[in-house]
Amino acid sequence: MPDLPSPFASKAQRDQARHAKKEAVLRAAVDLFNERGFHATSLDDIASRLGITKPAIYHYFGNKDQVLFHGLTVGMEQLRAAVDEARRHSGRGVDRLRAFLILYAEINMTAFGRCVILTEEHELMDASRRRFRTLKREIDTALRELLREAVEDGTVVTSDLRLTAFALAGALGWVARWYKDDGQQSAMQIANGLVDGLIKGLAPR
Amino acid sequence: MPDLPSPFASKAQRDQARHAKKEAVLRAAVDLFNERGFHATSLDDIASRLGITKPAIYHYFGNKDQVLFHGLTVGMEQLRAAVDEARRHSGRGVDRLRAFLILYAEINMTAFGRCVILTEEHELMDASRRRFRTLKREIDTALRELLREAVEDGTVVTSDLRLTAFALAGALGWVARWYKDDGQQSAMQIANGLVDGLIKGLAPR
Repeated sequence: MPDLPSPFASKAQRDQARHAKKEAVLRAAVDLFNERGFHATSLDDIASRLGITKPAIYHYFGNKDQVLFHGLTVGMEQLRAAVDEARRHSGRGVDRLRAFLILYAEINMTAFGRCVILTEEHELMDASRRRFRTLKREIDTALRELLREAVEDGTVVTSDLRLTAFALAGALGWVARWYKDDGQQSAMQIANGLVDGLIKGLAPR
Repeated sequence: MPDLPSPFASKAQRDQARHAKKEAVLRAAVDLFNERGFHATSLDDIASRLGITKPAIYHYFGNKDQVLFHGLTVGMEQLRAAVDEARRHSGRGVDRLRAFLILYAEINMTAFGRCVILTEEHELMDASRRRFRTLKREIDTALRELLREAVEDGTVVTSDLRLTAFALAGALGWVARWYKDDGQQSAMQIANGLVDGLIKGLAPR
């Protein structure tokens, strides 16, 4: 006779369920922050979108600042992973830069990525703000380094590395403001279109 | 004997004084909105920065939404004037586009221009939001038209007009986020540096 599955959840199953619930809270929160803004969104709004109660949210997060900070952390982790992925890319400097920019643009069109762009530092409490700023600086530095390496191996030309890095971040950050998931162009098409144009503009001639 | 100046203010002088006071309220408000965000700024904060009382602000504006909307209007008028100035520019399409982009970047580093970029539509009440959206669309359309004209006279090359317009707006809008008036580079140097790079990227080859 085959073993019947246990009707009791294992530790791993409970952990997984807890993790999934936490993620669902963050996703609902981030969607609301992106739509209405952080200040105009209450924990009650988040709870009601999920059909749960506010105390259920307190089970995972101490307050709204914590919810925002954890939502931002998800987005920042995606960006960090994008840096790592681009770094692993073999080939020329411009290929690694391109790989990162595509991922960067795509992330900026996701809920968590949009939240990173749309959140202003002054919306966070002191401790969260400092950590958010540190994480953002890490991404900025990585972008600048990828650009520098492409300049050094001669596959990209620019007269001002710092301004070019800002221009790239701005051109691809802006999508968080205007992108609508209306099916006109997919996030991937937009990312490719934008990055192709930008990279072409940086090509040696 | 020469005429002595009248100790009584003329109608024109009173109007001018009123206008100057209204502008000062807007400027103080916009500075605070840019620093702390709209929601975290109260009318009391604005009054206390000017050393006046809250009722003195009510003399000019009905509520905080009105203060924000009028501050945005000042910024939008600067952008509109920039479109007009670029349109009057003789020369090729790329010259008119360049003229507009320089002004656009410079405005985005002023207090009122930063406020236009940093304000999210959901921070405004319905009527103000609709007007803000209309004004912004006007500027977006003007940028796209200037780009189209430069493509049509062959002085700019792009495969996707819409995405390129967004990329330009993003690259130059981002300065509202990172620009600090710390004397490292002047607003004019930054504007020129950014726009030179972008325009070079759009040049026919």
